[in-house]
Amino acid sequence: MSKQAFELLILGSSAATPTANRNPTAQLLNIAERFFLIDCGEGTQMQIRKYKARFQSINHIFISHLHGDHFYGLPGLLASMHLLGRINELVIYGPKELEEIIHLIHKHSDTYLNYPLKFVYTQSTSKQLIYEDEKVEVFSLPLKHRIATTGYLFREKPLPRNIDKYKLEKLNVSFAEIHKLKIGMDAIDNFGNTIKNSDLTMEPPASRSYAFCSDTKFFEELANDIKGVDLLYHESTFLDEKKDRAKQTFHSTAKQAAEMAALSKAKKLILGHFSARYGNLEEFLIEAQSIYPHTELAVEGLVFSI
Amino acid sequence: MSKQAFELLILGSSAATPTANRNPTAQLLNIAERFFLIDCGEGTQMQIRKYKARFQSINHIFISHLHGDHFYGLPGLLASMHLLGRINELVIYGPKELEEIIHLIHKHSDTYLNYPLKFVYTQSTSKQLIYEDEKVEVFSLPLKHRIATTGYLFREKPLPRNIDKYKLEKLNVSFAEIHKLKIGMDAIDNFGNTIKNSDLTMEPPASRSYAFCSDTKFFEELANDIKGVDLLYHESTFLDEKKDRAKQTFHSTAKQAAEMAALSKAKKLILGHFSARYGNLEEFLIEAQSIYPHTELAVEGLVFSI
Repeated sequence: MSKQAFELLILGSSAATPTANRNPTAQLLNIAERFFLIDCGEGTQMQIRKYKARFQSINHIFISHLHGDHFYGLPGLLASMHLLGRINELVIYGPKELEEIIHLIHKHSDTYLNYPLKFVYTQSTSKQLIYEDEKVEVFSLPLKHRIATTGYLFREKPLPRNIDKYKLEKLNVSFAEIHKLKIGMDAIDNFGNTIKNSDLTMEPPASRSYAFCSDTKFFEELANDIKGVDLLYHESTFLDEKKDRAKQTFHSTAKQAAEMAALSKAKKLILGHFSARYGNLEEFLIEAQSIYPHTELAVEGLVFSI
Repeated sequence: MSKQAFELLILGSSAATPTANRNPTAQLLNIAERFFLIDCGEGTQMQIRKYKARFQSINHIFISHLHGDHFYGLPGLLASMHLLGRINELVIYGPKELEEIIHLIHKHSDTYLNYPLKFVYTQSTSKQLIYEDEKVEVFSLPLKHRIATTGYLFREKPLPRNIDKYKLEKLNVSFAEIHKLKIGMDAIDNFGNTIKNSDLTMEPPASRSYAFCSDTKFFEELANDIKGVDLLYHESTFLDEKKDRAKQTFHSTAKQAAEMAALSKAKKLILGHFSARYGNLEEFLIEAQSIYPHTELAVEGLVFSI
């Protein structure tokens, strides 16, 4: 069985003010051909085009909070989806007030979308399951920022156990009993013999997961919500030299992001949401890697596969 | 006397959906070091950076109407101006409802600007003087689109008459009498002789003007409001082959834009607001130039000087 896709495309990695080379926050996550857009800063629709991502395949948009660099691209994206003929439902996950903003804009521009737009409100006080289908589940995570903010944890559901086909062919087992094997139970062959599950099946590939944590100050409790995650995106607006500024603005440093990766035992860390004051991002990597070696920068256009 | 600046920089020329190469509507007009931003589609702040225009020198923003491709870049621009340390007042001209939208966004994102933001409401029923200083005046122009829409006419005020310094030096005239000459009156020299204005002064350079007309269907009455304009930007969302679609959506064709240029006796026409369906824009130029030869395309990054 070939592994299903689990790919993250970085569309923007800038903090509040975009620079000549960096757009505000936006990411596109593909898990098994579900396309999840995470945050939608100004210009996201242009970035989606630039990187030739699948525009209309996005059915779910997750907004972390209502600072402009995380959602000012949303009204334009919604309009373009409409103009390009979308009819499929689109679901937006985010703070309740986002719906009020979008509705007011649509009212004053006399806009009617040709597709159903549904809002699912997030709350930032506890971890919550907010999306689920047969293969994937998504949780919102409380973060600590200046306004109500949630991170998101995307996780594959456990896959069925793999049956050893060579061993199975030599046995005489009904379809009903094979299903039992797949879900981890023992089975009985057509002669009445018990077949132990562990003799005939193998562990499925581990469920993969991705945690998006932006914007937030460093706080230890977050590690519990993202324990053992395969890929962790953690904001690092500043370098350690500006840790007072980070504290004051409820942001994190590269060092703190690395500390969170270590604390949560994440398998890989990617840094983003870089302040416009930094031209060269090399220092972010050096600072974080001194604590957590498996660190990369969320450079626009990069794809991280698990 | 050297001529003062009168320069238009094109920042975006796309219609509703941006393409890989074209951003939505935005233009930056410099008249005598007043920087007027005209419309502000999504991504305008990135375009301003790209073309190294003077970000914080913009003190006046003119919004034509509340379709997203003409103002979705405004919230992000306002935020970046704040974050980059602006303290000078910014005035926004546009429909009343724009203020409601901006205020709601600021409320929910807990945003307080460090500079005064003032709104001047436009109405789309008659031509109206909405801005004036000692050198420049700006009028809003009623356009005919699906929602309330105004164009804008930017005009230098008449310059004072130029005095022939060589002739003046040979005469014996007081400062008070020289002022009379400048404003077109006759003067009297220190010996009581009358000096005819026409003997000593020359016509000043003609007042230059620019008319921005987007979005609108073609309607003849517009020509009266922009008669003799030096530079006319007229939307041409479609080619003539799609004139029914243009009529239906209250837009214009390249042919109609050229007809408006001819009717208003504009000195030069620039076309813009091209539908995303057109990759190559050559056809727009050919169609318009067959009626009105002094036509150019509003290609991003181009500067039109008068």
